[in-house]
Amino acid sequence: MNKSIEATLDEMTLTEKAALTAGLNMWMTKGIERLNIPPIHMYDGTNGIRKTNSDEEMGITTENVPATCYPTGSAIGSSWNTELLGEIGIALGRESKEMGVELLLGPGVNMKRTPLGGRNFEYYSEDPFLTGELGAAFINGLQSEGVGASLKHFAGNNQEFEKMVTSSEIDERTLREIYLSAFERIVKKADPWTIMCSYNLLNGSYTSENEYLLNDILREEWGYEGVVLSDWTAVNDRIRGLKAGLDLEMPGPAHYNMKLIVEAVNNGTLKEEQLDKSVARILKLVERVTGNEESGSAPGSKQDYHALARRAAAESIVLLKNESDILPLQPNTDRSIAIIGRFAKKPRIQGAGSAKVTPTQVDIPWEEMKELAGASANLSYADGYPEDDSINEAMIRESVSIAAKSDVAILFVGQPEYAESEMHDLKDIKLPDHQVALIQAVAAVQPKCVVVTSSGTALSMHPWVEHVPGVIHSWLTGQGMGRAIAEILFGLTNPSGKLSETFPVKLSDNPAHMRIRGENGKLYYREGIFVGYRYYDSKELAPAFPFGHGLSYTTFTYTDLEVTQHDEGVTVSIQIENTGDRTGKEVVQLYVHDEECNFVRPDKELKAFAKIELAPGEKQKIVFTLEERDFAYYNTKHGRWIAESGYFKISLGSTSRDLRMTERLYCEFEVEEIKLHKFSLISEWVSDPIAKAVFEETLEEMNQHVTEQIYLDEVFVGFWGDAPAIKILQMYGQNWLTERTPDDVMDELITRVHERRFAGKLS
Amino acid sequence: MNKSIEATLDEMTLTEKAALTAGLNMWMTKGIERLNIPPIHMYDGTNGIRKTNSDEEMGITTENVPATCYPTGSAIGSSWNTELLGEIGIALGRESKEMGVELLLGPGVNMKRTPLGGRNFEYYSEDPFLTGELGAAFINGLQSEGVGASLKHFAGNNQEFEKMVTSSEIDERTLREIYLSAFERIVKKADPWTIMCSYNLLNGSYTSENEYLLNDILREEWGYEGVVLSDWTAVNDRIRGLKAGLDLEMPGPAHYNMKLIVEAVNNGTLKEEQLDKSVARILKLVERVTGNEESGSAPGSKQDYHALARRAAAESIVLLKNESDILPLQPNTDRSIAIIGRFAKKPRIQGAGSAKVTPTQVDIPWEEMKELAGASANLSYADGYPEDDSINEAMIRESVSIAAKSDVAILFVGQPEYAESEMHDLKDIKLPDHQVALIQAVAAVQPKCVVVTSSGTALSMHPWVEHVPGVIHSWLTGQGMGRAIAEILFGLTNPSGKLSETFPVKLSDNPAHMRIRGENGKLYYREGIFVGYRYYDSKELAPAFPFGHGLSYTTFTYTDLEVTQHDEGVTVSIQIENTGDRTGKEVVQLYVHDEECNFVRPDKELKAFAKIELAPGEKQKIVFTLEERDFAYYNTKHGRWIAESGYFKISLGSTSRDLRMTERLYCEFEVEEIKLHKFSLISEWVSDPIAKAVFEETLEEMNQHVTEQIYLDEVFVGFWGDAPAIKILQMYGQNWLTERTPDDVMDELITRVHERRFAGKLS
Repeated sequence: MNKSIEATLDEMTLTEKAALTAGLNMWMTKGIERLNIPPIHMYDGTNGIRKTNSDEEMGITTENVPATCYPTGSAIGSSWNTELLGEIGIALGRESKEMGVELLLGPGVNMKRTPLGGRNFEYYSEDPFLTGELGAAFINGLQSEGVGASLKHFAGNNQEFEKMVTSSEIDERTLREIYLSAFERIVKKADPWTIMCSYNLLNGSYTSENEYLLNDILREEWGYEGVVLSDWTAVNDRIRGLKAGLDLEMPGPAHYNMKLIVEAVNNGTLKEEQLDKSVARILKLVERVTGNEESGSAPGSKQDYHALARRAAAESIVLLKNESDILPLQPNTDRSIAIIGRFAKKPRIQGAGSAKVTPTQVDIPWEEMKELAGASANLSYADGYPEDDSINEAMIRESVSIAAKSDVAILFVGQPEYAESEMHDLKDIKLPDHQVALIQAVAAVQPKCVVVTSSGTALSMHPWVEHVPGVIHSWLTGQGMGRAIAEILFGLTNPSGKLSETFPVKLSDNPAHMRIRGENGKLYYREGIFVGYRYYDSKELAPAFPFGHGLSYTTFTYTDLEVTQHDEGVTVSIQIENTGDRTGKEVVQLYVHDEECNFVRPDKELKAFAKIELAPGEKQKIVFTLEERDFAYYNTKHGRWIAESGYFKISLGSTSRDLRMTERLYCEFEVEEIKLHKFSLISEWVSDPIAKAVFEETLEEMNQHVTEQIYLDEVFVGFWGDAPAIKILQMYGQNWLTERTPDDVMDELITRVHERRFAGKLS
Repeated sequence: MNKSIEATLDEMTLTEKAALTAGLNMWMTKGIERLNIPPIHMYDGTNGIRKTNSDEEMGITTENVPATCYPTGSAIGSSWNTELLGEIGIALGRESKEMGVELLLGPGVNMKRTPLGGRNFEYYSEDPFLTGELGAAFINGLQSEGVGASLKHFAGNNQEFEKMVTSSEIDERTLREIYLSAFERIVKKADPWTIMCSYNLLNGSYTSENEYLLNDILREEWGYEGVVLSDWTAVNDRIRGLKAGLDLEMPGPAHYNMKLIVEAVNNGTLKEEQLDKSVARILKLVERVTGNEESGSAPGSKQDYHALARRAAAESIVLLKNESDILPLQPNTDRSIAIIGRFAKKPRIQGAGSAKVTPTQVDIPWEEMKELAGASANLSYADGYPEDDSINEAMIRESVSIAAKSDVAILFVGQPEYAESEMHDLKDIKLPDHQVALIQAVAAVQPKCVVVTSSGTALSMHPWVEHVPGVIHSWLTGQGMGRAIAEILFGLTNPSGKLSETFPVKLSDNPAHMRIRGENGKLYYREGIFVGYRYYDSKELAPAFPFGHGLSYTTFTYTDLEVTQHDEGVTVSIQIENTGDRTGKEVVQLYVHDEECNFVRPDKELKAFAKIELAPGEKQKIVFTLEERDFAYYNTKHGRWIAESGYFKISLGSTSRDLRMTERLYCEFEVEEIKLHKFSLISEWVSDPIAKAVFEETLEEMNQHVTEQIYLDEVFVGFWGDAPAIKILQMYGQNWLTERTPDDVMDELITRVHERRFAGKLS
């Protein structure tokens, strides 16, 4: 705690302290004029600023103050571009300052456990490493402008169904490897000024009052010193929350909880030092955000922001399929273009809920295409499908008619607006029936058919994807989306997005299928660590489009893989060459595979990536460094990350299922000494020469008193290896154990092993 | 407790009581001569009697006293024939009496969670209903002879890996619906005289000392009054065990635990009444088994038992594939037969471990085939593959050579002997590479090719199964297996076995894939209730051969489905006709599907079945009765089985994926009244007219004090429906709640709802 904060704290009354731990209203903390403590102004969201018209309003279903709408999380996650995330962070920092925003309530970095998650569009990926890298880059950019981030939602909220009354039941290893991993990386790499707890319970305790999560892990293990604030109304028991380390309750003013806090301190159920810790952290946050107008760069123009939004969209959109190089469109052969589908004129640029931004302007695909196609091209348009869910045969006929008359048809389809919103999980990942019918009908008359899909989460494209040569997944890519799509279609932009999540063939393929609705307030994360590609790999189940997939208009080759071990870890280098005829970007992905392990591990895990741009014929060498942690898993027996010595494979590829080069290497890591205990297995006893000898002596003694003679030979150990040694005494030695218990004998045995080990070390 | 037991108990000293709660040696309890309490003699196993040469010996890897070896559990499970199970029970009772066995340590009814489970061969099925019906029939047969059963292993042990130190972590609903369900059915339908606890921990507590399992569920809920004994050495804390209801420790004499018990009673940590309960139950068991020589029928002959073993094998073997009616073999066209594979001369009739019986005689397939083929047929033989794991090209060439020269080739293959044993899980469910190479080579030269597979658990037959027209899965069907296979091949027996477990295409398809090894002593049953066909159905994943599958040499049609509701439940009748030209048996399977439910349910569940024999052209009407429980699931919110009103489908079929007739019906069951509480959701409040009105009045009051006005209109409820009402007060009402807390308001609201409901009932 710095001196000024200490001094301020000394001057504060108990009531003032209590007051500071809750907001003033929906979006501000309380200032204390007497002490020159100004209020903090904070607003949603994750892909832009959702500033309400009044600080008293939630405004979740209304229009708010216009601000730049960038690609949503799942879209920008597919850019795999940390630099770009940094740029967006900086731009949002600048725009925040213009708008009087000191704390921006994002980014959201929860894992995509299920493609049905209602807030999936806000989150980056199914992979914690990718998420962590992108989140850290974003926050470092934002905070460099003097505007605070709020990393959310901490933790274990991965669906919307009854989230406020549901406990996410997540085993320790899964929690560490999947659901906390991105948070940990970001805390360590970007020090977000605030972290927002989630609504749900985690293993039986609300995250807003979960001491294990907020104190033991976040503060003690990770060393986090920023402010933890509640998601809006996520506080239940305020005193428990304060004790656990929840500093700030939002929204305020929470008169009742102020009173409770004062009472609790007065009657001794809450120590004032505990309260002071939270207040000090909030004071530090006040310091950090104060005067941010002067820090960082100057405000930008709306045009600059929009240009960045377009560029971000262009990096996020994924070219899924491009048979016979149907894309980009060719000015000489693709002269008449049928553009079909309402989304061409009314694009879905984002999802609904607290992340919904009122954009400053919106690029319309239809208009951008008209502009880029030029006057000589012939563009026609049909709505294609109605606004409701019915199938409209007349609209399909109209679409078929213009498609048949054109050189090429571009269909704009996707999840309907209402399907993707906070508070509601999706019902399916298929396109609505009317869109599927439309695609099939158009594809039947026009073989040159490109489908542009919009959604914030994975789509199942079975079976229509087989009937069209071109598919672009545009995600929900913000206000610059229309321009970005048009540029990709016409080849002005070479697509470079790579899927940040697996696209399964069908919904039921997904790892959490049938398991996203809690029962009796408990939701078991049954798939464990096998989330996303980790699941599809281990199940040997082919996805429609794998994690990391995304096509380019050029080609890249991978050569010269070199893997070197040294004291600091492993260095991996590889050369990438653009072997096509267009400048393009490749995302080089590095996966690690552990060949044998005491615990079950995924087939492979992403441990590094880089996005590079190469001109035709250009080569570049990329170097990655891996540390011990990159080979480790969370070992629940020892309660820490452990890398086991043995063979690993390092693979580099263009997608998670297109691994171009692999090298196998033996890595040596420190080994734990076997600790013998009452229930140590026969196989453990015989694996240690001293322990084996001691146990054999005991068996010799036992054999003199019993009928069936026991020797640690191959047959015996082969059968009983997995049994604890004590069971052998119970099974065969009961007529010998007239005075002692099996426990006594085990104690003696273990003591003798320790004595001999010690003697051995002396000699 | 009856009077004589009470009297005996009164006369017993504390030391005598303690002594009686552990065995005398490996296989006997202690008799107390002074009180005329004789010892009880008990022996393994599940598919025959494993009586050791001495009562001091475990004898697990030695030859023991010869006894009839019946089909193993997974084999007989595929008979779907409760009558047959009863007959085997009776025969084993008779043989037990001859051999001085008073308590037979079986049957094993654990569920097949994974096809890799090392004791799967001992267990009946992946379905608890099928298991429960078969287990009850077996026990009723056995105990009718005055010989006690020991239902095992109770509960939640479904793999061998480190089972003695691993806690099966099973959520309550999964436990009830899958892992306890067969036990419950059997306890209620057959009252087994003893139940054997398992080695593992269940949710953190050893089953040998698990009060929730042994007392709360088994005794209190199910009303079980028999003896619970430990699996051999499964006792850890004897006093905790006694308190939980573990009556008998095996093996004995357990001098140390006798002392501990006496001490515990003397120092008051164990109440003597607690000990008395266990002693009384053991005394009752002594009464039950005493003089069993006189009860039931007279001992049978070895020949009778062997004949039954053959008949049982014939009912258990499953004809998986029979393209172009390659089977049965035709005397006129199949004159020269190549018989290939060691198992033809050395059949695998059972698995290894405590269930391994030393058979009285063994039918050899090769010899039985020679006999049935007659002198005019030309049978040749080749070993086909070596005893070890290598691929032997010379043996394959020899096999190919005799196959090419013959009219038909029969291959005998399967899991190697060492692969299936207690204490060890299987490594894979594929055939060894040398056998796959053999099959492919033979099938390439001889299109008339039948593969007979032996294993105690599901096999993956991909891809060779596509290349052969005939496949018979013979399981491990005991000493009569050789004859039964020969009779099926030559058409003297019409096969009628139906798979008691799903055969997946590949190992990784199975629901517990990568999840059968515990980590840090915990094994999470992550697939939950989705075990076996419940999983393949919900994942829309096609198995190679589904649960319930099995072909016949004749055909059956299903007609005249009638479904009638009445006070006692639902009566279902259907007519089955043999439309082929051979007498045969059909297993009619009834599945129930719940169309909509508050909790996720499997697509369908087996709720009734019947095996019937029909002559060509014969018809039979089958009638099933379903009760409320057959429509119910275990609702963890209410802690009991609940059937929800709504539409159900009743389907009847020949396999779980060949449903021939379905009827949909609406069932009305009692409804629970909505109980409002602090965290009740907005959707719950608005679903009740009184509650909605009360809540709206409160919002009206609130709206007068706050900026943003809240109404329970469609948009608002649409967004916030899944949020607890209290969160609305926290979100929008904080400027109104200057004196009261949100909790206070909720209390008032709930009180007002109750008052109006009460007033409404009065008026």
